[in-house]
Amino acid sequence: MRELNRLKVPARTIMTPGPVEVDPRVLQAMSSSILGQFDPSFTSLMNETMGLLRQVLQTNNKWAYPVDGTSRAGIEAVLCSIIEEDDKVLIPSFGRFGGLLTEIAERCGAEVHLMHCEWGTVFEPEQVIAELKKIQPKVLAMVHGDTSTGRMQPLKEIGMACRELDILFVVDAVATVAGTEVKTDEWMIDGLITGTQKCLSVPAGMAPLTYNERIEQVLLERKSIEKGLLTQDLAVSSSGRRIRSNYLDLSQLQDYWSPARLNHHTEATTMLYGLYEGLNIILEEGLENRYQRHRLNEQALVSGIEAMGLTLFGDNQFKLPTVTCVQIPDGVDGDSVRKMLLEDFGIEIASSFGPLHGKIWRIGTMGYSCQQRNVLITLEP
Amino acid sequence: MRELNRLKVPARTIMTPGPVEVDPRVLQAMSSSILGQFDPSFTSLMNETMGLLRQVLQTNNKWAYPVDGTSRAGIEAVLCSIIEEDDKVLIPSFGRFGGLLTEIAERCGAEVHLMHCEWGTVFEPEQVIAELKKIQPKVLAMVHGDTSTGRMQPLKEIGMACRELDILFVVDAVATVAGTEVKTDEWMIDGLITGTQKCLSVPAGMAPLTYNERIEQVLLERKSIEKGLLTQDLAVSSSGRRIRSNYLDLSQLQDYWSPARLNHHTEATTMLYGLYEGLNIILEEGLENRYQRHRLNEQALVSGIEAMGLTLFGDNQFKLPTVTCVQIPDGVDGDSVRKMLLEDFGIEIASSFGPLHGKIWRIGTMGYSCQQRNVLITLEP
Repeated sequence: MRELNRLKVPARTIMTPGPVEVDPRVLQAMSSSILGQFDPSFTSLMNETMGLLRQVLQTNNKWAYPVDGTSRAGIEAVLCSIIEEDDKVLIPSFGRFGGLLTEIAERCGAEVHLMHCEWGTVFEPEQVIAELKKIQPKVLAMVHGDTSTGRMQPLKEIGMACRELDILFVVDAVATVAGTEVKTDEWMIDGLITGTQKCLSVPAGMAPLTYNERIEQVLLERKSIEKGLLTQDLAVSSSGRRIRSNYLDLSQLQDYWSPARLNHHTEATTMLYGLYEGLNIILEEGLENRYQRHRLNEQALVSGIEAMGLTLFGDNQFKLPTVTCVQIPDGVDGDSVRKMLLEDFGIEIASSFGPLHGKIWRIGTMGYSCQQRNVLITLEP
Repeated sequence: MRELNRLKVPARTIMTPGPVEVDPRVLQAMSSSILGQFDPSFTSLMNETMGLLRQVLQTNNKWAYPVDGTSRAGIEAVLCSIIEEDDKVLIPSFGRFGGLLTEIAERCGAEVHLMHCEWGTVFEPEQVIAELKKIQPKVLAMVHGDTSTGRMQPLKEIGMACRELDILFVVDAVATVAGTEVKTDEWMIDGLITGTQKCLSVPAGMAPLTYNERIEQVLLERKSIEKGLLTQDLAVSSSGRRIRSNYLDLSQLQDYWSPARLNHHTEATTMLYGLYEGLNIILEEGLENRYQRHRLNEQALVSGIEAMGLTLFGDNQFKLPTVTCVQIPDGVDGDSVRKMLLEDFGIEIASSFGPLHGKIWRIGTMGYSCQQRNVLITLEP
């Protein structure tokens, strides 16, 4: 007889930029039994989730649904569905996740034009707009809040310029949605992606996204019906502009999320239960109340850190309200402090990437983790 | 005050080829609280899951881990990581999911050579081997059990031929792993993909896969480190052979699943809990006992169906033991029967795709759904 293994999950206070703690209500919802993917009870849930997502993402777009994968799956889905070989894409990068946009766009075959600014700062909108006019790209891809540096880029003026110049504006809002204001329609964002494991406070594994008819038009031009769904199995479906991924092909995904329910993948049942419940929790709290709670706990955390004599990293004017970056004092081993916090107190904070690794700690105040109790415990374990 | 929405999940007996019911133990495991992705408690769980997967997939491969996406994400991950522009790929297709392999390989830029056989039959290994010798492809991609037609392709001789001819053998075993014998190493399969929502009986959303050093060698040749993880943000990482997807790039995924833990996505915490528990349940039952249970319930189902005077679809010698296809009698509206079963009895069975839609019902006996009670209820609701 094989020895029984048990899942061991110690209690944690998670103060990283994700994955963060989730409301027990979300976990309860996720313990519901399975429904078939074409069961009317399940397809209703899909439709309701789309409605809830529209509210949280502040959009009237027809299309708002999750991709079954983590945040970057959603980013790649949008980019690979609209970028064709040698399309010009402008990416103003102010941290690691601008690097990720670049990486994905390059792999999609784009001619990437990269703008850099020092990590810890963001771009003046005018700088970006000038470059847009010069390069005239098909797509401008930008991060809203980059957790690697803890900065947030103002997007409204840039969105307006993109619309005027007829450029598709794609935004990675993984770190900001449901933690601070993100106005998809008002900021004229054409495609926006978020993730479940940050301020939505749902376990990692889904990337909710939305896009408007400007992006849909590109999708429809590139669309093909999947082999095996056609009644003639030999029928060839293709234009030279075919989307390179099947799994992340938004033109097929939107058919699956439409009343046609054209089979694509098998929707991730339990994750959808969690997303549905998480979105309901957000809307019950109210977006404005939720943003206010995030601001309050951020301010408490910042005050406590400064009271300890520690220094924040980066340009404070553009601080991301959901992540606080703290300079590791000279002579202190940042990783051993994190290890001590985790092992002795069950508190998790994060390090950073690339040039900032070992130089800053990053403390998240996101979603269900963003509560007074957690902030106080983290400041004084 | 906003009205409270409640998640409503009616009880179902799910007798489709997936998603199927899951053991309540899996759902309990999934209700555990969140762990950070670099928390040693979580990385240990990742390592243990790899060990469990190796046992279930009957392999000694170093690499055995899930991709965070549904089954086809795993298939695309393997194919897009090894196929380069104009590589020859041979695909003998005996159902819809051969069509899916074709679709994915084409999008990866492959020169696809397609073999067809009538739906309801499979290939003689000699046919495939003769074509392998003629075409000399880099990759042979095949489905093991195609749920669309309910057939299972013998793979052992084909695997041996691939190894002799130095061809990479990739198998979609989504419908068979943990329900019937699948011997990755003994059948000389180089890359094998499965899904959670069928005989593993874990909710949809993960694609466990394994591959050997023959595939790893291709990955290492095409590997690039992600921008933003390099200390020099401007450093260019690229060979002309770069993998087209970031999310599904196995060369990066294996770094994340290795002791290096190089950051890629945020592993889907709760889904991993479910996979871990599901794999433990499988190994506690024992693979041979589990296959035997699947055979027994299949035989009971088949006997009952034949006793009703209904006729099975397809070549019985190659019947997939986890899916039973039944011809819809002339004059019967297949969809209204399915609707009645669902609405009046809470029992779900499936229709099929493409040329078989409206012609057959498909009844799954997979994983936790594969139990005597369910078979009896389905035969006599």
